[in-house]
Amino acid sequence: MHTMDKTYYCVIMAGGIGSRFWPVSRSDMPKQFLDILGVGRTLIQQTFDRFTKIIPDENIYVVTNEEYSSIVHEQLPKVPVENILGEPMRRNTAPCIMYANCKIGLKNPDAKIVVTPADHLILNEDLFLDNITEGLEFVTESNALLTLGITPNRPATGYGYIQMSENAENQKFIPVKTFTEKPQLELAKFFLESGDFLWNSGIFLWKQTSIRDAIKNHLKELYSLFSEGIKNFNTPREKETITEIYSGAKSISIDFGVMEKESNVYVMQTNFGWSDLGTWNSLYTIANRDENGNTDLYKNTLFANSNGNYVNIQGDNKIAIIRDLDDFIVVDTDKALLICKRENEQTLTEMLNDAKVKFGEGIK
Amino acid sequence: MHTMDKTYYCVIMAGGIGSRFWPVSRSDMPKQFLDILGVGRTLIQQTFDRFTKIIPDENIYVVTNEEYSSIVHEQLPKVPVENILGEPMRRNTAPCIMYANCKIGLKNPDAKIVVTPADHLILNEDLFLDNITEGLEFVTESNALLTLGITPNRPATGYGYIQMSENAENQKFIPVKTFTEKPQLELAKFFLESGDFLWNSGIFLWKQTSIRDAIKNHLKELYSLFSEGIKNFNTPREKETITEIYSGAKSISIDFGVMEKESNVYVMQTNFGWSDLGTWNSLYTIANRDENGNTDLYKNTLFANSNGNYVNIQGDNKIAIIRDLDDFIVVDTDKALLICKRENEQTLTEMLNDAKVKFGEGIK
Repeated sequence: MHTMDKTYYCVIMAGGIGSRFWPVSRSDMPKQFLDILGVGRTLIQQTFDRFTKIIPDENIYVVTNEEYSSIVHEQLPKVPVENILGEPMRRNTAPCIMYANCKIGLKNPDAKIVVTPADHLILNEDLFLDNITEGLEFVTESNALLTLGITPNRPATGYGYIQMSENAENQKFIPVKTFTEKPQLELAKFFLESGDFLWNSGIFLWKQTSIRDAIKNHLKELYSLFSEGIKNFNTPREKETITEIYSGAKSISIDFGVMEKESNVYVMQTNFGWSDLGTWNSLYTIANRDENGNTDLYKNTLFANSNGNYVNIQGDNKIAIIRDLDDFIVVDTDKALLICKRENEQTLTEMLNDAKVKFGEGIK
Repeated sequence: MHTMDKTYYCVIMAGGIGSRFWPVSRSDMPKQFLDILGVGRTLIQQTFDRFTKIIPDENIYVVTNEEYSSIVHEQLPKVPVENILGEPMRRNTAPCIMYANCKIGLKNPDAKIVVTPADHLILNEDLFLDNITEGLEFVTESNALLTLGITPNRPATGYGYIQMSENAENQKFIPVKTFTEKPQLELAKFFLESGDFLWNSGIFLWKQTSIRDAIKNHLKELYSLFSEGIKNFNTPREKETITEIYSGAKSISIDFGVMEKESNVYVMQTNFGWSDLGTWNSLYTIANRDENGNTDLYKNTLFANSNGNYVNIQGDNKIAIIRDLDDFIVVDTDKALLICKRENEQTLTEMLNDAKVKFGEGIK
C-alpha cells in the first residue's frame, strides 16, 4: 500500500504527435491515445492507472493539445475535466509544465508534483511507485528538482543521458553533473562504459514552489508571461489568455531551459523496466516473439520462412501471410501500410515527408 | 470491320475460383470478375468486349458456377440471362462445353462456336479477332476441331503445350501431333528449342456438330448423360436435370477427354500477345514498371531502396510506404495482406491451406 497524500499531484504531458508510429499513430490520434502494446489499455490510460494508486484522481492533471482534450476526457473519465489543460500550440515541455504548475499552485501552493510523459512503458510498477513516493518525500524536504535516471543496458542513441556527480556512491539521490542530448553511437558506448551516465526518463519531481522559482530564475520571459496572465486563470478568459501566452512563448524544453542551468538538481538512479516506446523497433525489443523471432501483435499472421519481424495487422478479421521476410516492420491499418527493414526505421519521418509531397497532406 | 455472322457463337468459360490470386481473388469473387489489371474493366468484361465486335450478343454464352450467375449478369448486362448457364458443381471443361453445346444446338444446329476462358489477357486485339474470324471460317468448311497455339518466347512451366505435325511449313492450320501437360523446366526448354511446340491457349473453335460428334466418340458416358437430359433443357426442369447430369459426370478436361484422342485436330499458330494471367508474378511480367522495376497498380505507394516488386494496395485513399524490399509481391485488401518473394509464389496455395487451418475457413 502506498500513502495517498492529498498534497501529491501528477502532471501527465500528452502533447506528442507520434509520427514515428505512423501509420497507426496519426496526428488525429497520436501514440499516447493508442493501445500500441495490444494490452487493452492505451498508453495514457496505463500511465493514469499507475498514478491513481498513489495520487488522488482530483490531483491528476493532463496537458495536451486542445485538439485532443476530448480524447483525454473519453479515455480518462476519472480525471476532472478542469484538470485537462489544452495547449493551443506546441511549445515543448517548459510552457506545458509552467501552465500546469500555475494551475496547481492556485489550488494548493503546498503541492508536491510528479511530471511524467503519457506514453512510456514501465514494467516494474511496484518499484516505480516506490521510487515516486520516495522521490516525493525527498522533494518535500528540500527544494531540489529531482529526475529519475534509468541504468542503461545498451548504448542507446535514442535517449538523452544524465551524468551523475562523482563520489556519489551509496546515495539514493545524486547531484546531476550534466544533461546531454541524444548521443552518436560512439559517445553512447562511452557513456555506457563509464558507468556515470543514466538514461533521462523525462520524469521529474519537485515542489510546486521549487520549479516555479527555477523557471523564474532561468526562463524569465516565460515566467513573466504567466505572471501577467495568471489573474485570468480559472475565469472565462483563461483560454484566450493561454493562447496569448503560448503565442508569445518560445518553444523550449524543461531540460534545456531549467534543468541544465539549475544547480539544485538531483537524479535518482533506478531500473524499473523502462522504455520511451519511441519507435516500432523499440516495441519489437520489448514484445513477445515466437521461436522465429517474429512478433505478431494481433495473432493474425501466418509466417513462412520469415524471422525477426515486428508485425501489426489491424482490422476486424483481417489476416496476413508473410513469406521470405526477415527483420522487417510491417504495420497495416485501413489507411496505410508500412513495410520497412527494422534497422532503417529512423528514415520513417523522412519517408513520411516524401509521402506527403507525393500523396498530399491528407495522409498525416 | 469484322463480319457479324449470325451463325457465330461464343462460349465464355467462367467457372474458375482463382486461389492463386488470393487475397484479391477469393472464392466469393474469383479472378475473372475482378479488374485485376487496374484498367477499369474486369477480365470477363474484357473478354466480352473483344467478342462482341464479331459475334452477336445474343449468341454469346457464359458457363459459370451457379453461385456466380448473378455476378455475370451484373457485369455483362448485354448477355441474355438465358445464355448464362449455371453449373451446380465443378467438373472441368468437358461437361461445361457439352452443356453450352447442347443449348446452342437447340437454338441453331448450324452454329460455329469459339470457346474461350474468361480470364486471359490478349494484347493485340485486331490480330486476335482476325484469327478468330479465319478460324471460324476454317471450321465452317471442315469438321476440324481447331485450337489457337501461341508461339512461346520462354520455357514457361505454367502452360500446356501443343506439338505441331512436321512438314507443316507455311500452312495456316496445322495438324496437331500431341497435347502435353505443364512440363518441368528442362522439358520446357527442349520444347522451346525444338520449334515444334506452341502454348495451349485454351481457346477452341469448331462447329456445334463437330464437337458434339467428337464427345460422342470419346466421352460416351458424358454424351449419354446429356442425350438423356436434353429433353428437359429450356423447361422448368433444366436446373434439376443439370444437377443430375453433373452429379453423374466425371471431372475431365476437353483437352484430355477429346482433343488428345481425336485425329481431326488442328492448331493455328499465332502470337497476339497472350497470357493466362495465372499468378501474381504473371501480372508483374506484363505490368508497367517504374525505373526501379516496381509495379504500383494503384499508384499509391512510396518506394525507397526497393526494386522489382509487384504492389497492389487496395482501399480508398490507402497508401503504402515500402522500404528495403526487393522482388516481392505485396497485395493488400481490406480482408488480407500477402507479402511473398516473387520467386516463391507457387507456395501460395499451400500457405493458404495452412492459413485456413490456423485461422478457419472464413479466410477463403
